[in-house]
Amino acid sequence: MDDTTPGAFALATAVHPDESTPGRWTGDIPAGWDIAGNTNGGLLLALATRAIGEATGRPDPVTVTGHFLAPGRPGPAVVDVDVVRPGGRHATARALMATDRTILSVMATMTDLSAPTGPTLIDGGPPDLPPPEQCQTQRTGPFGVPPFVGRVDQRIHPDDVRFDQPGGKSGRAVMRGWFGLRDGEPLDTVALVLASDAFPPTIFNTDLPVAWTPTVELTVHVRARPRPGWLRAVFRTRFVSSGYLEADGELWDGDDRLVAQSRQLALVPRGS
Amino acid sequence: MDDTTPGAFALATAVHPDESTPGRWTGDIPAGWDIAGNTNGGLLLALATRAIGEATGRPDPVTVTGHFLAPGRPGPAVVDVDVVRPGGRHATARALMATDRTILSVMATMTDLSAPTGPTLIDGGPPDLPPPEQCQTQRTGPFGVPPFVGRVDQRIHPDDVRFDQPGGKSGRAVMRGWFGLRDGEPLDTVALVLASDAFPPTIFNTDLPVAWTPTVELTVHVRARPRPGWLRAVFRTRFVSSGYLEADGELWDGDDRLVAQSRQLALVPRGS
Repeated sequence: MDDTTPGAFALATAVHPDESTPGRWTGDIPAGWDIAGNTNGGLLLALATRAIGEATGRPDPVTVTGHFLAPGRPGPAVVDVDVVRPGGRHATARALMATDRTILSVMATMTDLSAPTGPTLIDGGPPDLPPPEQCQTQRTGPFGVPPFVGRVDQRIHPDDVRFDQPGGKSGRAVMRGWFGLRDGEPLDTVALVLASDAFPPTIFNTDLPVAWTPTVELTVHVRARPRPGWLRAVFRTRFVSSGYLEADGELWDGDDRLVAQSRQLALVPRGS
Repeated sequence: MDDTTPGAFALATAVHPDESTPGRWTGDIPAGWDIAGNTNGGLLLALATRAIGEATGRPDPVTVTGHFLAPGRPGPAVVDVDVVRPGGRHATARALMATDRTILSVMATMTDLSAPTGPTLIDGGPPDLPPPEQCQTQRTGPFGVPPFVGRVDQRIHPDDVRFDQPGGKSGRAVMRGWFGLRDGEPLDTVALVLASDAFPPTIFNTDLPVAWTPTVELTVHVRARPRPGWLRAVFRTRFVSSGYLEADGELWDGDDRLVAQSRQLALVPRGS
């Protein structure tokens, strides 16, 4: 892929202004980015974030939150953006994404992270992973292999990927792995939103009888633009209670830099 | 205080429908809940959450996010609520709070947590604290004792409260303590939003030269209605980079139950 060819993720999240409706952006949710027929939530949130980036003129989501209202399906989508603070360093906007109905409500504060400054204190480091070629893509799941998995380059830690096999669960609500886009497509900060929702649920590695964990809300904090190449990702769940769980994510780039943190609240369906 | 007298927090967050403007609620930001003149962000978010609770008919914020756009000051406030999903189990709404200008943008998914169900997995426990009478309220700070501190009952761990004294910093970006409301006012789930922003910044216990950390965004996940009595709170920061830091909070009730998790993204001002 040369620099002038948009990659699959760039195409999947491309948005265009609707000249007839101020603040409206149109996109097209592509087929194939789904889990059991529902489009990956990270892709939906990335698409909405792209529209907010266009509307605010700032490319980097310092903090973006999506509340998932209904499943996403392939086809045309509109994103109505309401800039609530045009801003200087930070601009804040909210957005609603709709297909045949409203599927996602989003709020984001955007900035330009090209020249970050400030003091640094880092208590932690990237997850320890075998090389990507010794890690594996998700091979099955409660609904088979999610088509989404084929749209990105996901390599899960050998200790975390065997949750579908007898005796294969690690026993810890942790999922670690490498993440990249296909065909060497470079990752921008909006791709970090996708990466934050691109691994199987942490609790597949526990004995909880749960087949799916629909996302109620996902928040991603972006700290830096990633350098080209693989990301290392780790997701952990510490609390399953009252029908909910959190999954906390960290994304690290090849310079051993934390580029994003994420937290999602997911539903633990009753009786699943 | 008997059961019929509203407490100070209930009064501070009371909202009334504006009969002339659909979706609008009015409140009054009280004096005295400030830090250096700016009203505590948790109180502002609690007030907006109260309006969203009224508008959706559901009292408990499963997940609420606020983006802080401008400082809050005492006086009349309006909250314009837009219910984006009326919902069954969950209702989702967004809101803008304004005084003389828009100060806060909010998104929340609300529910009724009176009868929680689901599997449980808990990896963690409440922070270990000496009894409240051996803990201390914040005694000073970069701008003196925040008036806010006198409006709630905050008792900080002896190891974490001496950040203002020579040699008193713990060296760890952690803040632990007890939290309650004054005069025995019971805590509802909206009070957990307040509690999530009611302690001094974690990094006051580190050597970073930072006098204040304005909140960009605060998200609170509520898991359960707290039982009456003290909460135990812990806040931790692991990553300060690019001019931002996160502070992760946990709130535990007297039954050793995690009642809320929080994460805020705060600015580390350049040159502070």
